[in-house]
Amino acid sequence: MATHRFHPTRYFNAIGVAEPCLRVADGDTVVTDTIDASGLDAREVAVASRPNPMTGPFFIEGAEPGDTLAVRIDRLTPSRATGWTYSPLALTVLDPAAILDRPPQQRVVWNIDREAGTVRLQDKVKGLEDFAPPIQPMIGCFGVAPAFGQALSTATSAQNGGNMDYRLFAPGTTAWFPVSVRGALFYLGDGHACQGDGEITGTGIETSFEMEVTFRVLKRTITWPRGETADDIFTVGNARPLDQALQHATTEMSRWLGEDYGLDARAASHLMGQVVRYDVGNVFNPAFTVACRIAKRWLPKR
Amino acid sequence: MATHRFHPTRYFNAIGVAEPCLRVADGDTVVTDTIDASGLDAREVAVASRPNPMTGPFFIEGAEPGDTLAVRIDRLTPSRATGWTYSPLALTVLDPAAILDRPPQQRVVWNIDREAGTVRLQDKVKGLEDFAPPIQPMIGCFGVAPAFGQALSTATSAQNGGNMDYRLFAPGTTAWFPVSVRGALFYLGDGHACQGDGEITGTGIETSFEMEVTFRVLKRTITWPRGETADDIFTVGNARPLDQALQHATTEMSRWLGEDYGLDARAASHLMGQVVRYDVGNVFNPAFTVACRIAKRWLPKR
Amino acid sequence: MATHRFHPTRYFNAIGVAEPCLRVADGDTVVTDTIDASGLDAREVAVASRPNPMTGPFFIEGAEPGDTLAVRIDRLTPSRATGWTYSPLALTVLDPAAILDRPPQQRVVWNIDREAGTVRLQDKVKGLEDFAPPIQPMIGCFGVAPAFGQALSTATSAQNGGNMDYRLFAPGTTAWFPVSVRGALFYLGDGHACQGDGEITGTGIETSFEMEVTFRVLKRTITWPRGETADDIFTVGNARPLDQALQHATTEMSRWLGEDYGLDARAASHLMGQVVRYDVGNVFNPAFTVACRIAKRWLPKR
Amino acid sequence: MATHRFHPTRYFNAIGVAEPCLRVADGDTVVTDTIDASGLDAREVAVASRPNPMTGPFFIEGAEPGDTLAVRIDRLTPSRATGWTYSPLALTVLDPAAILDRPPQQRVVWNIDREAGTVRLQDKVKGLEDFAPPIQPMIGCFGVAPAFGQALSTATSAQNGGNMDYRLFAPGTTAWFPVSVRGALFYLGDGHACQGDGEITGTGIETSFEMEVTFRVLKRTITWPRGETADDIFTVGNARPLDQALQHATTEMSRWLGEDYGLDARAASHLMGQVVRYDVGNVFNPAFTVACRIAKRWLPKR
Repeated sequence: MATHRFHPTRYFNAIGVAEPCLRVADGDTVVTDTIDASGLDAREVAVASRPNPMTGPFFIEGAEPGDTLAVRIDRLTPSRATGWTYSPLALTVLDPAAILDRPPQQRVVWNIDREAGTVRLQDKVKGLEDFAPPIQPMIGCFGVAPAFGQALSTATSAQNGGNMDYRLFAPGTTAWFPVSVRGALFYLGDGHACQGDGEITGTGIETSFEMEVTFRVLKRTITWPRGETADDIFTVGNARPLDQALQHATTEMSRWLGEDYGLDARAASHLMGQVVRYDVGNVFNPAFTVACRIAKRWLPKR
Repeated sequence: MATHRFHPTRYFNAIGVAEPCLRVADGDTVVTDTIDASGLDAREVAVASRPNPMTGPFFIEGAEPGDTLAVRIDRLTPSRATGWTYSPLALTVLDPAAILDRPPQQRVVWNIDREAGTVRLQDKVKGLEDFAPPIQPMIGCFGVAPAFGQALSTATSAQNGGNMDYRLFAPGTTAWFPVSVRGALFYLGDGHACQGDGEITGTGIETSFEMEVTFRVLKRTITWPRGETADDIFTVGNARPLDQALQHATTEMSRWLGEDYGLDARAASHLMGQVVRYDVGNVFNPAFTVACRIAKRWLPKR
Repeated sequence: MATHRFHPTRYFNAIGVAEPCLRVADGDTVVTDTIDASGLDAREVAVASRPNPMTGPFFIEGAEPGDTLAVRIDRLTPSRATGWTYSPLALTVLDPAAILDRPPQQRVVWNIDREAGTVRLQDKVKGLEDFAPPIQPMIGCFGVAPAFGQALSTATSAQNGGNMDYRLFAPGTTAWFPVSVRGALFYLGDGHACQGDGEITGTGIETSFEMEVTFRVLKRTITWPRGETADDIFTVGNARPLDQALQHATTEMSRWLGEDYGLDARAASHLMGQVVRYDVGNVFNPAFTVACRIAKRWLPKR
Repeated sequence: MATHRFHPTRYFNAIGVAEPCLRVADGDTVVTDTIDASGLDAREVAVASRPNPMTGPFFIEGAEPGDTLAVRIDRLTPSRATGWTYSPLALTVLDPAAILDRPPQQRVVWNIDREAGTVRLQDKVKGLEDFAPPIQPMIGCFGVAPAFGQALSTATSAQNGGNMDYRLFAPGTTAWFPVSVRGALFYLGDGHACQGDGEITGTGIETSFEMEVTFRVLKRTITWPRGETADDIFTVGNARPLDQALQHATTEMSRWLGEDYGLDARAASHLMGQVVRYDVGNVFNPAFTVACRIAKRWLPKR
């Protein structure tokens, strides 16, 4: 149960098989640095290039193809005092006719006030003088090496995770990934200080982080990423259109309710039909992300 | 500001121009009965046929094409002690490969315990012995006559509302609809005692209701349905795939933030990008429903 | 087997139940006038308004719900010397990023040279000085009253036909529609002098026509429109996204091969897998249109 | 202008950066062997595993990122006397409700009669006794290494090509691919003896081939694959849903008409609007394929 402090010196724009940056044991914790989506580090120095340069890969001993890697997000601490977003709304979330009137894309800076616990636009914007939502840190992009010798761009996501941009990948959440190669080969980065549903400007508040995560290898097989928070369990589907992402997440949740909670397909539908919640992770990247979520209080006792 | 008690004797399976069942003034309240999605009334007698037989249409005096009809949902009281759902999960939310293993569709009955405030499966289902979520009544299908002389099936939805199956169409919510004909011609029905996101078994808990709603005519023009709850404002898009429904809802929200809150497209994106929430109304009907929601606490003071 | 000459005086923007303009017998032929998509008649006088004003409805005696109405397109003769199109490409066929650079929409006029058998831009356009494709007349919008008391805008299409904008709905083709009301109630209009796949500028070459069609009532039931040309049989699906339209058309073709050609699902797949062709009718209207087409030479002898 | 005869001994299930199997000059021809989608070679020996094992990669000298690799398909000769398909229709092309009645998947064998020039089911199937369509060989999967260090599964396709399963990738066609790495790194395989549109059983007639292709490096930049046959030029988009694939292909064609034929966006729309054809490459793989095609006879003289 060691804790490793790792300082990255190289970054990856694809999630695949590469030389591990560090080998850790099942149960170990890693504290490491991540840079922002455009490659700026804690001093705002460009140390890598787009998209979403990743720290990693971490080799987790004992992880074998067919296993599941559980990653508990222990802490996400912004490592600088500003982040940035794009404006206006992304092309993917506007009616095509509304794109004709869209102002040009701009990059704007937000102050991350760790004392106040809020984010705030650096320059004054009419109507938003008082707009200061809480810092709600999350991991935009993380996951493990995919199957079939693939290396997938950190712009997108798939069964192995990747650029899901789902705001519940936050401190306290444990994320599960299906392992396809020995050691799992885990990457992380693209931290956001705040983000609504859908990553609808094409960004969260992009900044550098110190991230702390703890690994556990589960000797069980899953098909799509899963997660657990204090209150909920959830499954994640990544695809286009949103319909297909939702189908992946829903089917995976129905499987989970069978595997761990003893509900057959019919019973699972009774429960899900009344209490399921869907969250839109991102509706911006090449693959969109939908989470299927159930509050734990509705789950049968195990 | 009269209150009208209306007992329907005929029902409609399409929302369009028809002889009004009642004419009411701007500001009036209507208390009326609705039957369930399959046409069963409060005594479980079949008095109409599928899909979603509607009570109405109500002619609201002063409503003209280009106006907006605001409908406050004052009260939704189930008028019988049982409701029904389908099982298992709908074809639209499963991976196609999972459809191959899907058990046949069944209709199951739920007890609606108004004293306890819960719904509960009538027959015992393994693992769900303690499953009793709260009654959370909602309107599945309501809206006004569409434009261009159309009459649209109550199985589907469009800019004029219809079968949106969104659980925030609940007591305390005010829904706005774009008026296309004189008098608006408002219909309602398809009440659910409970329903998760997406109406993913193809039903909520379908039952008959006594519904109370209050009308107000707004001299303003909207493109898609909008709503307001105690905590939130939201816009609704209806289309396939979900992506397009989301685009409609998002574009309409951006317009609303401009019209009423003084935010230009860029400022609206700063706000929405950090705090927007998406809800899936239904992912079952011919048109899917996505709501774009913002908590009022983030809105600029007017 | 009478031939009726009908001169319309009123037009419809929705396909639904309305007072018949003419009652004809099974086997009869109708010769009638249609106006263009914007309501201009043969003299370019505006006699109706958008979208796609229809001539009809024709009541075909003997047609009952559950039957099929076969409509042979005998002749489509443009009734004026010009038509018009929009430019540039429609929003639905461009990458969203390309919409940012799109020039504003314009209406342009084409000369329809019936002697030469060609269409040609009226004003000179650089690079298209010699562009004169053949007149290939087609019906953009036609169909029968839908089920459930619906009236559907002539902007869109569904199981009952409507605005499919498929270029094989041309002289020599017989189109089949599923009948939902007594007399079928057939409408037609929106003729194009020429159009590529997809109606990708949002128009064909829109003009007024004299159209001649012959009706036959078939005592059989279909789910989606079907058609037959000299060389092919085809089925049509109308929906969004294109994937769903293609699923409807493909499933309907598999059914047809079973009903009329004795192929079970497996045999139908062997044949379709090697020789099927897909055509995109329109990728512009609220519902997109995909045709599934098989050359008759591959069909088993009946 | 050398001709190289290459016998592969290893195969790839992802298209990415790997040690070249052969270095060839701009203008050279390669004659090589490909194995079928499941890894069976000309003797029906399993020499590799799914999906779609590729021959390659070929390093083409002079090809640099930003260039275009033109690959002329000189000859595709089946190297054994049988191929196989799946039956029945794929899940992606059926209405979800029709999946409930779908018979289980089977693998069937076809005889490839090179003398008669036809393919024919090996076992007798009722109604298909005379069904013998012509051999129409095509390449199912080919392309070049993608950008950003990615390696993409040969089950799917993207801007770099891949598993497009488009039947016009046939002898006589020249395909263009955007080069992202030095040497382009070209792979090919997954030959089909015949296939209709869409690869709707999930296969063409899968068999091993001797393939002959000739490379040329073009000092120009493209975004999506393009092609040229004796009669047509075409562009290819790969994505889900079909709508997005069609948008990619259409936008790329509009660009091409500007680059090489002097048509601005408006003029391109006049031409495409009247004569464009869309083909569905595949509607089975993770990314669907749509081609946008124009007959050369309509193109302006250069």
